Amino acid sequence: MENLSPATPMITLTTDFGVGSRYVAAMKGVILSLNPVARLVDLTHAIPPQNIAAGAMALAETVPYFPPQTIHLAVVDPGVGTGRQLVYAEIGGQQLVAPDNGLLGRLAARQQPSKIIALTASQFWAPQVSDTFHGRDIMAPVAARLSLGLSPDELGEPVDRLALLNWPEVQKVANHIDGQVVEVDSFGNLITNITREMLAGVPTDEAVTIHCDEHETQGIFKTYGDQPALTLLAVVGSSDFLELAIVDENASKILGVKSGTPVRLSW
Amino acid sequence: MENLSPATPMITLTTDFGVGSRYVAAMKGVILSLNPVARLVDLTHAIPPQNIAAGAMALAETVPYFPPQTIHLAVVDPGVGTGRQLVYAEIGGQQLVAPDNGLLGRLAARQQPSKIIALTASQFWAPQVSDTFHGRDIMAPVAARLSLGLSPDELGEPVDRLALLNWPEVQKVANHIDGQVVEVDSFGNLITNITREMLAGVPTDEAVTIHCDEHETQGIFKTYGDQPALTLLAVVGSSDFLELAIVDENASKILGVKSGTPVRLSW
Amino acid sequence: MENLSPATPMITLTTDFGVGSRYVAAMKGVILSLNPVARLVDLTHAIPPQNIAAGAMALAETVPYFPPQTIHLAVVDPGVGTGRQLVYAEIGGQQLVAPDNGLLGRLAARQQPSKIIALTASQFWAPQVSDTFHGRDIMAPVAARLSLGLSPDELGEPVDRLALLNWPEVQKVANHIDGQVVEVDSFGNLITNITREMLAGVPTDEAVTIHCDEHETQGIFKTYGDQPALTLLAVVGSSDFLELAIVDENASKILGVKSGTPVRLSW
Repeated sequence: MENLSPATPMITLTTDFGVGSRYVAAMKGVILSLNPVARLVDLTHAIPPQNIAAGAMALAETVPYFPPQTIHLAVVDPGVGTGRQLVYAEIGGQQLVAPDNGLLGRLAARQQPSKIIALTASQFWAPQVSDTFHGRDIMAPVAARLSLGLSPDELGEPVDRLALLNWPEVQKVANHIDGQVVEVDSFGNLITNITREMLAGVPTDEAVTIHCDEHETQGIFKTYGDQPALTLLAVVGSSDFLELAIVDENASKILGVKSGTPVRLSW
Repeated sequence: MENLSPATPMITLTTDFGVGSRYVAAMKGVILSLNPVARLVDLTHAIPPQNIAAGAMALAETVPYFPPQTIHLAVVDPGVGTGRQLVYAEIGGQQLVAPDNGLLGRLAARQQPSKIIALTASQFWAPQVSDTFHGRDIMAPVAARLSLGLSPDELGEPVDRLALLNWPEVQKVANHIDGQVVEVDSFGNLITNITREMLAGVPTDEAVTIHCDEHETQGIFKTYGDQPALTLLAVVGSSDFLELAIVDENASKILGVKSGTPVRLSW
Repeated sequence: MENLSPATPMITLTTDFGVGSRYVAAMKGVILSLNPVARLVDLTHAIPPQNIAAGAMALAETVPYFPPQTIHLAVVDPGVGTGRQLVYAEIGGQQLVAPDNGLLGRLAARQQPSKIIALTASQFWAPQVSDTFHGRDIMAPVAARLSLGLSPDELGEPVDRLALLNWPEVQKVANHIDGQVVEVDSFGNLITNITREMLAGVPTDEAVTIHCDEHETQGIFKTYGDQPALTLLAVVGSSDFLELAIVDENASKILGVKSGTPVRLSW
């Protein structure tokens, strides 16, 4: 895989540091000191602290939209300084640098990585590496050097497979599907792990009932505006997951529903 | 209107998706995949969900500061997937891509749009368009293609006028002005819809009293530091609106005042 | 000092305006209108409102990571429009534009500024200067003009020293050190003003006890993962300050500890 032309090396950043964290700024400074023409794109810094599954979902739903060979630096790293490995991975034509703790698990579930390298060649890291911030001291310098044209093969030894992500499975039986809420978006919409694909053969009219906690609604609609305001409705959202929304309102707050809540479709 | 030189096409982003939303990242990926050298500037993603008036205010108060012919992509779109139209508009030398739901209404109230085009030419959209995310699937590709030099006239058919925005009017009579709070900024300052212009002829000394809910203060000052700490004072702020502030404190929290609260000046 | 090559002038932004503030967007527009090829990097906009000490800490901990001669625009300016001075300063090879209210005090405490200039040459400001937003009307135009190659000496008259910052001192005596929490990061970790240097000669095993309010813990560890989940532990963090953390949790919320809380080490 060739890097992007040195004229436009692009590096995205995904962390659980919180929007406006000075830790993000330090990583940007490290990258730009090594490669002043790198173009930085904040993917998100609002991953809930140490929530690897949420980070994996954010990466899986955004990385594929970027130009091929974009470098993606992802840091959700509760195990920093302990035994967990750091890796470089190529997945679907994208280049990722991340801890190997499941953070790349959703991307890798869709498409087999074509290359995985453990980051062990310390000559590409910061001269001094702290015990608590490998994002700044190892992963940022590695991403910067990739953007300068360093071959990934120089970074360390090949690895066979990525660590698995503990991801809730969906059960589909005769006349019902059991899944759960896996994300609450900024509108309060409840994104489930039930995909459009899994809904093949499921009725979309009022013959289907969607249960979530003690709440329920009938039918699967096309868009939020298909029901009157303040109505709970189900749609297949823009990421092809079934979601529950309350028209013009924050469903999560009104229903008191969070990630992990079971969702059942029956028909 | 010519686009900016291809060397520096600039696209700003304004949404109600929330800071750190992965939906913003997806839009950025779509734009950069079509035009890897586009320069993205986050205008704001903190518009309160589905609050078209707040989005219109943010655009009106920031877009005019940008270089002529900047492309501004604005998505506050509660009606996504329903009958509302998407438009391209040229206003004051700036290029905007947005839903035609009033979001451009404050800008257009100050300066007549010189061109309005309905986005109907679907060959410039994503190959697959979801029902719930036209920011990613229609508006982002259109903005990217404009940044590549596509003529706006290709985007669809001309439109005569933009949808109106429901904006609270100010009443000025003999010896008082009635307006309201239209924005609370991040310091908790209460921005009203009463402009510097409307204050012509109004005394600025203690002969004028400003009422807001059950609170009141005398005089209109130049800057926050003109009164001691913890004092409620009125100033004409940096956007030329009358605002109420509590020196060194959050007026909105302390007074319990939000957008929509009536404000009366009497003298 | 030479500016960065005009091809890649970099300007970072640090404010207390709040993430997503339209005031930040206005400053960006002003800069880009003067220099469309300036590269803007958000350092942070999450400094607590008017908290100069927090801004000073954020600058000190991030600015040194940036390429030499980067221009840093910093606006935490409760005294806007009053007597406080605006300055340009060169510190450690970095260029800063800020109010002279202590905001540069932590950086200057580490390294003597090599140049300080009071911003008085109004021909480099906006044509109209508001009384309440000098970030947009004075500091942003000055930063933009520096990025275009303007010599700092043109900006005004040299100044001897920067305003001091009121920063809590650490007391070290025979067998204890008294400091305090000076920052709570986005993970809820409690960052103190006790540096790695001050810990020279202090035991790191259970012979040392760290007290914070009514809470205490023994030993100083290398990284968060060195203790089981939900345990309070002390580490020397990535910025070389002693910090207190609860493994996998938010120590600030759980302990109810905020900035300003005394911390004592005894051994």
